[in-house]
Amino acid sequence: MSAVLVVHGGAWAIPDELAKASVDGVKTAAREGFSVLKRGGSAVDAVEVAVRALEDNTVFDAGHGAVLNKDGEVELDAIIMDGRTLATGAVSSVKNIANPVSLARAVMEKTSHVMLTSQGANLFAESIGISTVPTETLVTEYERREWEKHKNYMTGVIEDFNTQWAHDTVGAVALDSAGNVACATSTGGIRNKMVGRVGDSPVIGCGGYADNLSGAVSCTGHGESILKVTLARLILSKIEQGKSVTEASQMSLQHMGDRVKGAGGAIVVSPSGHWAATFTTERMAWAAVEQDVLWYGLDPHERLKEQLPQ
Amino acid sequence: MSAVLVVHGGAWAIPDELAKASVDGVKTAAREGFSVLKRGGSAVDAVEVAVRALEDNTVFDAGHGAVLNKDGEVELDAIIMDGRTLATGAVSSVKNIANPVSLARAVMEKTSHVMLTSQGANLFAESIGISTVPTETLVTEYERREWEKHKNYMTGVIEDFNTQWAHDTVGAVALDSAGNVACATSTGGIRNKMVGRVGDSPVIGCGGYADNLSGAVSCTGHGESILKVTLARLILSKIEQGKSVTEASQMSLQHMGDRVKGAGGAIVVSPSGHWAATFTTERMAWAAVEQDVLWYGLDPHERLKEQLPQ
Repeated sequence: MSAVLVVHGGAWAIPDELAKASVDGVKTAAREGFSVLKRGGSAVDAVEVAVRALEDNTVFDAGHGAVLNKDGEVELDAIIMDGRTLATGAVSSVKNIANPVSLARAVMEKTSHVMLTSQGANLFAESIGISTVPTETLVTEYERREWEKHKNYMTGVIEDFNTQWAHDTVGAVALDSAGNVACATSTGGIRNKMVGRVGDSPVIGCGGYADNLSGAVSCTGHGESILKVTLARLILSKIEQGKSVTEASQMSLQHMGDRVKGAGGAIVVSPSGHWAATFTTERMAWAAVEQDVLWYGLDPHERLKEQLPQ
Repeated sequence: MSAVLVVHGGAWAIPDELAKASVDGVKTAAREGFSVLKRGGSAVDAVEVAVRALEDNTVFDAGHGAVLNKDGEVELDAIIMDGRTLATGAVSSVKNIANPVSLARAVMEKTSHVMLTSQGANLFAESIGISTVPTETLVTEYERREWEKHKNYMTGVIEDFNTQWAHDTVGAVALDSAGNVACATSTGGIRNKMVGRVGDSPVIGCGGYADNLSGAVSCTGHGESILKVTLARLILSKIEQGKSVTEASQMSLQHMGDRVKGAGGAIVVSPSGHWAATFTTERMAWAAVEQDVLWYGLDPHERLKEQLPQ
């Protein structure tokens, strides 16, 4: 089985001044995640490593670099899922955690639950010794400035989503050499969101889903729209019905546009190693590695290629 | 279009001493919900009224009668979804709210978000004038006693779920005379759950889903298992592929048992008015009204009938 890793850095109208940093960020995360697979590591390990790299990069709205809610606070959401057993861990609206994806993994591995929210998620983090970071270390000066500029505007309105002041989510999907798939998604959500707003990212079947029988998906875009159509599950249902990874993604994103007028993107990998990175927003930074070739893009239909050292 | 309303009071090993009260409770809620449809009300109105009746009944684990978490607190989850537009509102881990389903409806109608969690959900409730109730008004003496008895046991373990001290969820699905479907689900979760644990009930595609193109579902049972297979969405996917409401429910519950060893139940109504109430737990209290006939049951294959006044 030939290992595959795909990452995204969010589907939105990425402004030119963030374009290069976004592409560099997804390329780095994809290489780091793939190196886990190359060493024989599991798909779950690989997506966690890739998403941690994206969370640690302040250009992306997840972990460091997260957006601020209506009250000027950072509330983070993440999910991780193991396609072998459907084991899943998720956290929603958690504060002061640098790598929510690793906390989500701890929920999966150390509790009998799937999702912990808010203070409960923070209490659990404390109980297992995951250290907290001050809010200010997670917030960039850029974000503080943008938030000040826009804090009097309504948010969440779909019409606003494809403008430059929306901001979005990171994710990864992987197929390991044992044939197992996994996904992970992490986000700071939408700028100016209501306190306690949970978007699609930590919600199983919406922000992500992984099943060895059909594949792994991580989604990004207008969270409320993704929730309404359970986008990750929808894409995998179409794959189960015989569609290719690209067709399934395009049809599902099209359905989301038609039915609830939402834009977004998705990365997918199938158990046979087919993968896709698809979006209906203006841009999505994505990168994929298979057989030591790095593919990446930002604009629609852009598909660039680099050979990695063997 | 002939209106249909179906409710459940939770799928678990309902002990004999709660059997009559559970059946009486679902029959009353089904009649109240159906009376909304009979007056020409919407499916959304009907499922809200039915679930409020179940929340107000202390025999069920939702609103009044909710179970206690590890810290002896009540944390409530609910969802409501309108199959016409896929509009959805959900709250997770909210405290001191007597009717979480109505708060979920307010999220759907008064915010641009789908889900609010924990303190954020309570802040929103306060902002729109939904009054809070003291925790003690939500907790029965029976629950306080059961919690004291079991608080030292681990919870959430699947093997424990089919025993008498687990406790579960209420829900309703409806088809109105205009051909629109809706669902609602509400719960206090699993006794002794970790603080901040979110089960399937408020999660779109898991505890419930409604789409005029395929039908409406409300699920109950082992929350973590329902989440892992996105049970509500799975049932509707099978209906989209041509299965009957009963086949789709049975196949999906069977899949959940095979894949993640979870037991549960579901109520379903299709846009053409076909409905089902199916479960793999020992018992599920359910009731349905169509054309002034009330159907109800508790044990497997039990299907009793009463004529309602015209």
